[in-house]
Amino acid sequence: MVDILHRVGVQTPTPERVYEALTTVDGLAGWWTGDARGSGEPGGVLEFRFPPVGGFDMEVLETVPGERVTWRVVEGPAEWVGTTVEWRLRQDGDWTIVLFTHAGWREPVEFMHHCSTKWASFLLSLKSLLETGSGAPAPRDVPISDWH
Amino acid sequence: MVDILHRVGVQTPTPERVYEALTTVDGLAGWWTGDARGSGEPGGVLEFRFPPVGGFDMEVLETVPGERVTWRVVEGPAEWVGTTVEWRLRQDGDWTIVLFTHAGWREPVEFMHHCSTKWASFLLSLKSLLETGSGAPAPRDVPISDWH
Repeated sequence: MVDILHRVGVQTPTPERVYEALTTVDGLAGWWTGDARGSGEPGGVLEFRFPPVGGFDMEVLETVPGERVTWRVVEGPAEWVGTTVEWRLRQDGDWTIVLFTHAGWREPVEFMHHCSTKWASFLLSLKSLLETGSGAPAPRDVPISDWH
Repeated sequence: MVDILHRVGVQTPTPERVYEALTTVDGLAGWWTGDARGSGEPGGVLEFRFPPVGGFDMEVLETVPGERVTWRVVEGPAEWVGTTVEWRLRQDGDWTIVLFTHAGWREPVEFMHHCSTKWASFLLSLKSLLETGSGAPAPRDVPISDWH
C-alpha cells in the first residue's frame, strides 16, 4: 500500500474557511471541479465529474470542523475505489496548514504518479481560491500532461 | 519506506532535451535552482543550493541518454540523505513522459508531505522551461506554504 502525501500553507484564512472549501459544494467547485454536487456532511456522498473523462464519488466518513475531513472513494477508476482521502488542518500563526493524504493505493502504477502531481496542482488551486478568491478548478485546471 | 511519485508530460521536445535539462548545470538551473553547480555525469556530484535555507548534494548514480537519470542524496537534510531520486523518460507521440520517484524516505513525516508538493511544482517548472523557454527555479519558485 502506497500513499500520496502533500502539504500546503494557506495565508490569512482560518482553518474554518479551508474547512468550508472542503465540505460545501460551492467551496469544492471553486478549486477542484465546477461539476461538483452532493453533500459534504458525514454519511453524505459528494460527486465530482471531469467531463468528458469521468469522475469520483466520495462518501464522507468524518468531518471535524476546522480540523479534519475524510472521504472514501465509492465510485470511480478501479485504482481509486476503496482508497481514502484525508485532509488535516491546523493554524500556525498567520497560516492554515493543510496536510493531505490519499491512502490505500494497491500499486504504484503510472496513474498514481499522475494523480499525485494533479493533486498538488489542485491543492495550489485551493490555496489560490482562499488567498485570492480565484482557484483553477476543472475544466480550467492547469494541464500537466497528455492525460490532462 | 515510502516514496514520492509524480508524472508530467512535456509537449513537443524529445526525451533528449528533457535529459539535457536533468544532466547539465545550465538545464538544472533553469527549472530547479539558479544556484546549481557540479557534474551531471555518472560518478559526478551535483550541488543544489536554496539560499538561505540550505540545499542538497546529489551523487549521479546512472544516466542513460534520453531514458533515465538516477541520483543519490549524499548531503542535505537528514531525511534526504541516502534517499534516491529517479527520472524515467519516454516518448509518447508528441509528448515526452517524465516519471519521477524520490524513494527511500524512512517515515512519512510532515517534511515529506511538503517535499512531495514542492517536487510537483518544480516538475511543472521543468515542463514550462522546455515548452516555453522559461521555468520557475529558486529563488523565483512558486511559494506553496510558510516553508516556501
